[in-house]
Amino acid sequence: MNAIRTVAVVGAGLVGQGWAIVFARAGMDVAIFDAREKAEAVIGAQIEKAVGDLAAGGLCDDPASLLSRIRFATSLQDAVASCDYVQESAFERIDVKVDVSRAIDAALPAHAFVGSSTSGFPGSDFYADCGNRARMMVVHPVNPPHLVPLVEIVPTPWTAPEVAARARELMEQVGQSAVSLSREVPGFILNRLQGALLDEAFALFAEGYATADDIDRTVRDGLGLRWAFMGPFETIDLNAPKGLADYAERLGPMYSGFAEQRKANRDWVPEAVVRADAERRRVLPAGALEDRRSWRDDMLMRMVRAKRG
Amino acid sequence: MNAIRTVAVVGAGLVGQGWAIVFARAGMDVAIFDAREKAEAVIGAQIEKAVGDLAAGGLCDDPASLLSRIRFATSLQDAVASCDYVQESAFERIDVKVDVSRAIDAALPAHAFVGSSTSGFPGSDFYADCGNRARMMVVHPVNPPHLVPLVEIVPTPWTAPEVAARARELMEQVGQSAVSLSREVPGFILNRLQGALLDEAFALFAEGYATADDIDRTVRDGLGLRWAFMGPFETIDLNAPKGLADYAERLGPMYSGFAEQRKANRDWVPEAVVRADAERRRVLPAGALEDRRSWRDDMLMRMVRAKRG
Repeated sequence: MNAIRTVAVVGAGLVGQGWAIVFARAGMDVAIFDAREKAEAVIGAQIEKAVGDLAAGGLCDDPASLLSRIRFATSLQDAVASCDYVQESAFERIDVKVDVSRAIDAALPAHAFVGSSTSGFPGSDFYADCGNRARMMVVHPVNPPHLVPLVEIVPTPWTAPEVAARARELMEQVGQSAVSLSREVPGFILNRLQGALLDEAFALFAEGYATADDIDRTVRDGLGLRWAFMGPFETIDLNAPKGLADYAERLGPMYSGFAEQRKANRDWVPEAVVRADAERRRVLPAGALEDRRSWRDDMLMRMVRAKRG
Repeated sequence: MNAIRTVAVVGAGLVGQGWAIVFARAGMDVAIFDAREKAEAVIGAQIEKAVGDLAAGGLCDDPASLLSRIRFATSLQDAVASCDYVQESAFERIDVKVDVSRAIDAALPAHAFVGSSTSGFPGSDFYADCGNRARMMVVHPVNPPHLVPLVEIVPTPWTAPEVAARARELMEQVGQSAVSLSREVPGFILNRLQGALLDEAFALFAEGYATADDIDRTVRDGLGLRWAFMGPFETIDLNAPKGLADYAERLGPMYSGFAEQRKANRDWVPEAVVRADAERRRVLPAGALEDRRSWRDDMLMRMVRAKRG
């Protein structure tokens, strides 16, 4: 595979900004295009702040050098025409995704390929009309991508398997942790897993078994301590003497019983949403949300450092 | 509430051993009773090793002093008769739980109360015949309790609310993180949440969307990084501009759609269990399970330290 030296970041809200940092941190040249007014001043300042936080958190040795590799392109064409890879993070609306994908398609060099950051749409919803659709797919990060390494690579029915494989290599090269889906599924993997747990959490809360904070506590001081460095399969694999199949034989029927109870209704009960939000607002007033998000990002850096050892 | 100075640990497999460490670490005197032959030699050595690992991991300052507070009782009566609290961690079989609970009931001082470590049975299945059942409940830890702080306090219909409240105070006093359930529910909270995520993980794997390792990766490098310090509700509360209700309005319908697809079948497909186990055994041969469990415990200590800051 040709080395990737130059990346175009198209659309630079918080997700696109994080992507620019990821690629520049790995030594690549990044050209950002964002269609909003005064994009360079606003986005440039936000990226500088995020890189400063990374450096303060011990996760970036040379912030000045990183920032020097990021430039602002004058047009989408300018960003894309000379790149090896395009990370598209445009606004999450299907008509926007269709339009931006067509514009990228028209400017794409013959050797380059494209990943979309969309979390909500399968690529086949917006790549269908692109001439280069064999080199286009979803490359879905977690927010913010420069702190949370997970990336889901989701091919459309038209994506060439070798291009999806190159996307995985690229993600590993820049220090992300890539997951390869065989084909499209709504929500991909991460949001489906999150949704399954949220559904049960809302159901338990709606039925009054515990407060929202105690349900949160069950995850942050219990399940999540393991899940920060092992997935669910490795967790159960180590939790029975002979491993995963042994665990499934011992405990599968118990878990199956829980699911049986839940089949009737997995919606988030509106009244429970109102009560859970009210409990959260007592714990954390609306005006404090932004500070708590900074705390979260500090904690994420701490977890990333702890996992590295 | 009278101060708790002496704890009886009845049943000292890995869970009971972890409990003995938790209470002794907090400065309490611990009397262990385990009915197995040569219990003192075997269990004593295992506890010494675990405490040594804790000290090496920077989570125990004075291992000798901790160990000096643990004694082996000559009988269940000897352990229970002079204690303030009983943590029962007998073998997980309903007839054993019934018999041990009756024996504890007969020896229990008038001021003391009892928590069972059971993960699989509601307390009402084995406390019904106990004269002191108002002072008995489930106090369910995560394994190993001296590393993972989460504890679920589950009252039976007979448990006095003030005794359940004292159990929560006790758990907080010894440095555990307590969750109070309002009433019994199969699997309590932790295993229900774990089960919901496992069900979706097995379904995605059975349908061939990704490898077991990539599904694990989605958790350990994505969801789990957050869940190690925030629960699911706090996570979504910070992920929409106006908090939890805002998030539910934006994304609730998407999650509801995933659940809809799954209502038909949430069992762990036997063929998928076989394939997932085979994949795990390629990644980790059966002979290496024990070493990997040591690694897990080292990582847990690292996460506990990182969360403390």
